[in-house]
Amino acid sequence: MTFKEKLSAIQIEKHSIVCVGLDPDIERIPAGFFRNLEDIDRLLAFNASIIEATAPYASAYKLNAAFYECYGSSGWALLEKTLRLLPDDVVSIVDSKRGDIGNSARMYARSVFETLDVDACTVAPYMGLDSIEPFLAYANKAAFILARTSNTGAEDLQERRIDDVPVYEHLVRLLAEKANRYAGQMGLVVGATAGEALGVIREVAPGVPLLIPGVGAQGGDPAAVMRDAYAGPGTVLVNSSRSILYAGSGSDFDHAAAEEAQHLQEQLQAA
Amino acid sequence: MTFKEKLSAIQIEKHSIVCVGLDPDIERIPAGFFRNLEDIDRLLAFNASIIEATAPYASAYKLNAAFYECYGSSGWALLEKTLRLLPDDVVSIVDSKRGDIGNSARMYARSVFETLDVDACTVAPYMGLDSIEPFLAYANKAAFILARTSNTGAEDLQERRIDDVPVYEHLVRLLAEKANRYAGQMGLVVGATAGEALGVIREVAPGVPLLIPGVGAQGGDPAAVMRDAYAGPGTVLVNSSRSILYAGSGSDFDHAAAEEAQHLQEQLQAA
Repeated sequence: MTFKEKLSAIQIEKHSIVCVGLDPDIERIPAGFFRNLEDIDRLLAFNASIIEATAPYASAYKLNAAFYECYGSSGWALLEKTLRLLPDDVVSIVDSKRGDIGNSARMYARSVFETLDVDACTVAPYMGLDSIEPFLAYANKAAFILARTSNTGAEDLQERRIDDVPVYEHLVRLLAEKANRYAGQMGLVVGATAGEALGVIREVAPGVPLLIPGVGAQGGDPAAVMRDAYAGPGTVLVNSSRSILYAGSGSDFDHAAAEEAQHLQEQLQAA
Repeated sequence: MTFKEKLSAIQIEKHSIVCVGLDPDIERIPAGFFRNLEDIDRLLAFNASIIEATAPYASAYKLNAAFYECYGSSGWALLEKTLRLLPDDVVSIVDSKRGDIGNSARMYARSVFETLDVDACTVAPYMGLDSIEPFLAYANKAAFILARTSNTGAEDLQERRIDDVPVYEHLVRLLAEKANRYAGQMGLVVGATAGEALGVIREVAPGVPLLIPGVGAQGGDPAAVMRDAYAGPGTVLVNSSRSILYAGSGSDFDHAAAEEAQHLQEQLQAA
């Protein structure tokens, strides 16, 4: 089964396009939560609670590698353990935004798709197609390539113009033209706060799965996102991290997270 | 002492601008080398031999995270152990090309500059200045930002034009203008095979340390590199990975690596 097929089947079954971002921050998890554990084990217990509480409302989980890597090899072990906690009826995404020359990119692809064995990852495109292709070469996996991100820095390069189109559009057109044989394994990252970029990208890349961060803490509006993302065919994943993880700060944080995930699911379904 | 001061002092003392790239590949290390060890321990022994043999000729070591991360948490432990083997009179660089929104970028910066405690790292610029700045905020560290890379895919974005200059030049000018307060912590990555880009970047960014991969296996010419990189003021690091690591395939591979490192050092010094 390809990634697209797996994702579609799960989304239909669970009536959800919500992706929960597991970006655990020791500074932000409830103060009293498992205070007798070491930081790494507290984070694992926190992740376990969040996964259990939110699983009914999520079709995907996305682990941002930065929040694990900051603990070095122990953090990578935490990432590996957290992945093993995911239920079967979700897709797993490591959000690591890697990008390097072919030789090194193959190693990074092996890292996510063989060693960690997740369903999908994110990839940074600055180095060009030959740095992206090794991630697209796994038939049953997918790589979400950064197109238009949700941060203000997106103005610095992504919104500048090459041949009279924004850099992100140039990139998406280039991928459609030059990497079309990998279309089954390709996704794109488009921030929810990116204004017209989402609609442009959906038009230029019909059928391509979109991973959309920026709803919630970053301010993206679910209704606008749904309108633009579904202006053409293709699956959509809407990621929320902080607004779900830290919905509550007391001992009922897991219920608060579940409510927030359910609320987002319902908002998206209504829109 | 800032990174620039440390690097200059080491380069003067050792008469070397050679950076040895520690990208160990289990498929390419000598077949008979420590065959009784597990892969990870073989790689550690290999790294230890290479470091010991090449240290007299190197002012820096660069570890490409891809070659470690492909083993997951064990690979990150290998990276940590390898860093502890580096002598005092070199600078340590983790080549990880990270790039993410501010919140996550701070975690990645913490990973390299606090947890691993290396002197410098590499950073990918697609997401813009706010994704780069957290790496520049450490007074005694440095971030080498990808400007013009050595792979053919550099044509896809980096060589395209924004406001009539190549993307890499747009980026370097933007950094000089908008991130100038971090000038002391900023470096740039420019491939040795990038043709005129190296000269352009040195002109636009005088005084900025340049990390130059692509000499050796990738075909960059040391004499041309020296001419362009020193067309203006600023320190230079010339990285070679595969052509040093795999200079020999027999039991004398470490001597072969030392000879190759010394040869590169002499070529660069002559030029």
